[in-house]
Amino acid sequence: MKKEIIPYTRKVAYYETDQMGIVHHSNYIRWFEEARIDFLSQIGLPYSKMEEEGIMIPVLSAACEYKYAMRFGQRFQITLRIVSFTGVKFRVLYEVNDEDTGKLHATGESGHCFVTNTMIPIRMKKEYPDIYRRLMEYVQPQ
Amino acid sequence: MKKEIIPYTRKVAYYETDQMGIVHHSNYIRWFEEARIDFLSQIGLPYSKMEEEGIMIPVLSAACEYKYAMRFGQRFQITLRIVSFTGVKFRVLYEVNDEDTGKLHATGESGHCFVTNTMIPIRMKKEYPDIYRRLMEYVQPQ
Amino acid sequence: MKKEIIPYTRKVAYYETDQMGIVHHSNYIRWFEEARIDFLSQIGLPYSKMEEEGIMIPVLSAACEYKYAMRFGQRFQITLRIVSFTGVKFRVLYEVNDEDTGKLHATGESGHCFVTNTMIPIRMKKEYPDIYRRLMEYVQPQ
Amino acid sequence: MKKEIIPYTRKVAYYETDQMGIVHHSNYIRWFEEARIDFLSQIGLPYSKMEEEGIMIPVLSAACEYKYAMRFGQRFQITLRIVSFTGVKFRVLYEVNDEDTGKLHATGESGHCFVTNTMIPIRMKKEYPDIYRRLMEYVQPQ
Repeated sequence: MKKEIIPYTRKVAYYETDQMGIVHHSNYIRWFEEARIDFLSQIGLPYSKMEEEGIMIPVLSAACEYKYAMRFGQRFQITLRIVSFTGVKFRVLYEVNDEDTGKLHATGESGHCFVTNTMIPIRMKKEYPDIYRRLMEYVQPQ
Repeated sequence: MKKEIIPYTRKVAYYETDQMGIVHHSNYIRWFEEARIDFLSQIGLPYSKMEEEGIMIPVLSAACEYKYAMRFGQRFQITLRIVSFTGVKFRVLYEVNDEDTGKLHATGESGHCFVTNTMIPIRMKKEYPDIYRRLMEYVQPQ
Repeated sequence: MKKEIIPYTRKVAYYETDQMGIVHHSNYIRWFEEARIDFLSQIGLPYSKMEEEGIMIPVLSAACEYKYAMRFGQRFQITLRIVSFTGVKFRVLYEVNDEDTGKLHATGESGHCFVTNTMIPIRMKKEYPDIYRRLMEYVQPQ
Repeated sequence: MKKEIIPYTRKVAYYETDQMGIVHHSNYIRWFEEARIDFLSQIGLPYSKMEEEGIMIPVLSAACEYKYAMRFGQRFQITLRIVSFTGVKFRVLYEVNDEDTGKLHATGESGHCFVTNTMIPIRMKKEYPDIYRRLMEYVQPQ
């Protein structure tokens, strides 16, 4: 049963700013990871459990478009969407909005694959059919 | 006079790894910044001087493709190329190679613009013709 | 009126781990900052507002004792106590506990002072008596 | 044979600054690690080799006193001194100086122990006498 996903939210930390007075751009890539891990947890696939079972999900690509600078203390929310899943690889889109105003501050995407801890790709449909089905339920092609 | 650029090199720090035993992917975005600032310094446009003059160069977009994981202590070199410069915006491509073997570990790109410290775009050709010409010399379209 | 402070809580992020499989020790220093800013906000002294008024609170010293390693996904809570406030400088103690088990994972401390944005010390009692009194209410000597 | 140690040097990265316009204080803790790893490498004990052999060196405590703020692009040098080594634990002091002026910007210290990768303390004198002797040569009590 597909459940409603709650967007990931938190405030910008002070150490995430740089001397331009705005959030350093590298942090958005970290926020995407926070949101992705929160999403996996919400759909019943906590990442720590997957690593314990020997499933790792390295990042193949990551990208961000910065529309409006974000500032210390600003409360943001990240919504994400899995737009494809081949059974080995999947691709995620992100939106970073101000939680209060809804203003879109950044968009991004990342690509991932399932591998063993020796970095061998895992065909999830065959090896972990439950996880495969769970994730597949949430795929929304663009 | 265009000068030969020395690629940016250093070793992976311990705190740049994560529990997957490899460099956390967000660090490459930071390395691109290190390489970009080093490049600007090499061509006579040190970023700290530009900020003092009121010129800021925020990041409009950043992306990285991860080909082979990198590890603690590994010595890498980053080569970069400015592939376009409109007078306000410019775009940079990056390659991250193992310094010893030359193996390509990652590629990336970033987009930037020149703005005042109140975030107003600067037409560099008109406002800072020397910086404009200097940077233009190093543009190598793809 | 002194109010009850809610301890700062969150989960360990993946990017906060290192290849030892535990939280990198530098992150605790960042967590102390998160907890401190949250505390100031709870007592009605949001740090962003203070910076807007030209009050800055740089760090004079920071220290952490690591008792038990923390891991990805672990939920922690930070309690803090202001143990002294001279009117210019103050000192804070921290405890990092597992939120579920209550186990003490780390303790720490930091020292701070109030300065103008040109780094001149501010005698808070005279210059900002309201902030002075508010903070003084929460001082609990060791 | 004890050799002359070359202090660790590099420039402050842009992403190491915060909106106060100075280096964020958490980075000094990371710099101490960089300097420590560089030192171990210089005395013939590269940390990556030690981890491969199953020796880990977690941090038991870390502290920093901030004397003068550091800024983007500033070139610093870190000198360190091992002030005690019990055979299991050791303690290190650090000084961060501006490389050009020699001005002292910060001092710090950290405590460490040698453990197996299951976190069991290692009596180095017995288990790894070569490493024990090598490190012992560099101990300079305060």
